[in-house]
Amino acid sequence: MKKIHNRQETVNTLAQELIKGDPRAIAKAITLVENDGRQAREMMKDIYPYSGQSVIVGITGAPGSGKSTLVDQMIPLLKKKGKKIGIVAVDPSSPFTGGAILGDRIRMMRHSVDPDVFIRSMATRGHLGGLAKTTGEAITVLEAAGKDFILVETLGVGQDEVEVVKLADIVIVILTPGTGDDIQIFKAGIMEIADVFVLNKADSPDTDKVERQLKAILQLSLRKEEITPVVKTVATKGTGVAQLIDILDNLISSANKQQQETRKKKLISWMLRDIISDRIYQEIAKRILASVWDEFVEKIYRREMDPYSVAERLVKEIKGS
Amino acid sequence: MKKIHNRQETVNTLAQELIKGDPRAIAKAITLVENDGRQAREMMKDIYPYSGQSVIVGITGAPGSGKSTLVDQMIPLLKKKGKKIGIVAVDPSSPFTGGAILGDRIRMMRHSVDPDVFIRSMATRGHLGGLAKTTGEAITVLEAAGKDFILVETLGVGQDEVEVVKLADIVIVILTPGTGDDIQIFKAGIMEIADVFVLNKADSPDTDKVERQLKAILQLSLRKEEITPVVKTVATKGTGVAQLIDILDNLISSANKQQQETRKKKLISWMLRDIISDRIYQEIAKRILASVWDEFVEKIYRREMDPYSVAERLVKEIKGS
Repeated sequence: MKKIHNRQETVNTLAQELIKGDPRAIAKAITLVENDGRQAREMMKDIYPYSGQSVIVGITGAPGSGKSTLVDQMIPLLKKKGKKIGIVAVDPSSPFTGGAILGDRIRMMRHSVDPDVFIRSMATRGHLGGLAKTTGEAITVLEAAGKDFILVETLGVGQDEVEVVKLADIVIVILTPGTGDDIQIFKAGIMEIADVFVLNKADSPDTDKVERQLKAILQLSLRKEEITPVVKTVATKGTGVAQLIDILDNLISSANKQQQETRKKKLISWMLRDIISDRIYQEIAKRILASVWDEFVEKIYRREMDPYSVAERLVKEIKGS
Repeated sequence: MKKIHNRQETVNTLAQELIKGDPRAIAKAITLVENDGRQAREMMKDIYPYSGQSVIVGITGAPGSGKSTLVDQMIPLLKKKGKKIGIVAVDPSSPFTGGAILGDRIRMMRHSVDPDVFIRSMATRGHLGGLAKTTGEAITVLEAAGKDFILVETLGVGQDEVEVVKLADIVIVILTPGTGDDIQIFKAGIMEIADVFVLNKADSPDTDKVERQLKAILQLSLRKEEITPVVKTVATKGTGVAQLIDILDNLISSANKQQQETRKKKLISWMLRDIISDRIYQEIAKRILASVWDEFVEKIYRREMDPYSVAERLVKEIKGS
């Protein structure tokens, strides 16, 4: 009993330190959230009222398009404007290593000694909880810690990754000239979610052609009054990054508040669903013994039962308990 | 009442036609499954006993690595061996177009007039249901329809995509020399799941270097007695594809039955969880009025409540009803 009480106190203290913006508290809080459990929920309840004030910028692009390098270059320019920055890099899941740390990410870590910049690489391992919950919780932690800008970096493929990034206030889509596949891939679902396009590696000879193509596509599929801005960058050299920041500033000040509210509510709705789903799985795990679960799986494997009938039975049991 | 009865009959007839391998019945069945609902569940219950006999081959690689072109070249060689083939291409979600149809996929469609080859491109739109459920159900339909080989093609990134493909009987990972990012990305989580590596676009000058690097990595991380085979292909010309088929044959005949059983059970377990989750969401949708849900979202948005407390309350309501 004593121990639980102490734990509760620790969680309260953590929430307090977090709200002051302490980097160690942020790191601890995100770890707590990743490991889930009752303590994480209690902390999240404490800090939730302090969240919701930051600008969320989603950054997405194919592997190798230079997302992390671009973010790395954006940090000093945002800092010069006095902004506190949080970065959440959503990594493809690795079942074995527990998450990717790519070279660029490591390079970006040089900013991590800076108390105003917090960088966290989150592995999307497992599927319990869901990406909306994980990302939403990390954003909430960074918001409660007083970050002005939160950059959420994801790969431009994968169902949940796309869903999550498109709920940011502003979405940056990075394309790289000379990799014809990009345009094709992006046409399929990413094009429509961009608030600004970055043509990175714009020192490639294909750049002008790709820019023309992109603008032609944008004009064809015009659904807004204004055409989506396109910025050319060479992230490795910092070229064009200041212009990108100016465009972001413009987008923020002229932002469609209605649209942002809709997106934020959608993220909340999705998070809520993930949290409910998570709670229900925990109920399942508590109430249905692993041995019973395995027995059902075995019967389904042997084709003695089908998963639909088993699911119906288990749902009834969960509801009846 | 009459109408429901007729619908039931239609579903029964569909299941019967499907088991005979009728391509139109397969297409209808997968559409039914995609649209979900009671009819889909009834059909799945009917056909489930006929599934579980096929070899499932997962094929994964970065965008542009040539997955579809390779599959396109594998089809005639597998057909020559008298195999019936089903192909499920899992696409990144497009919230606007409802799924990607890439050029390569369209090219592959030339096989779709062949009654022994069934190709289906599945969009992973929305997240209700989950990728395991969607893919698992499409596989079940193709198995029940008597396909010998089922090729499941996914992008090598994205949390669920990786999870699903690694539950195939045999996993082919495609790398392309000359795109340094690949190796880096793949090291992070895909390397370990490969049963065979394909170095596609092997007419690139970097091929030999990449092959040496790959083999060095494989030797370092050796956890099996035999080293994972590496095949060099130029999918656009068909080069190396026959060798790949030979290796697949070898892998199938020397397959670790225990491992395959474990994977199949894991897929069942995951599918079961998705189906349960799906059912519970339907309960939520039935019992919690949209207006009440929106009211909660609004309160969370205004920071008057937090999503964790709301989730606890809703879960209690669902259980209590």
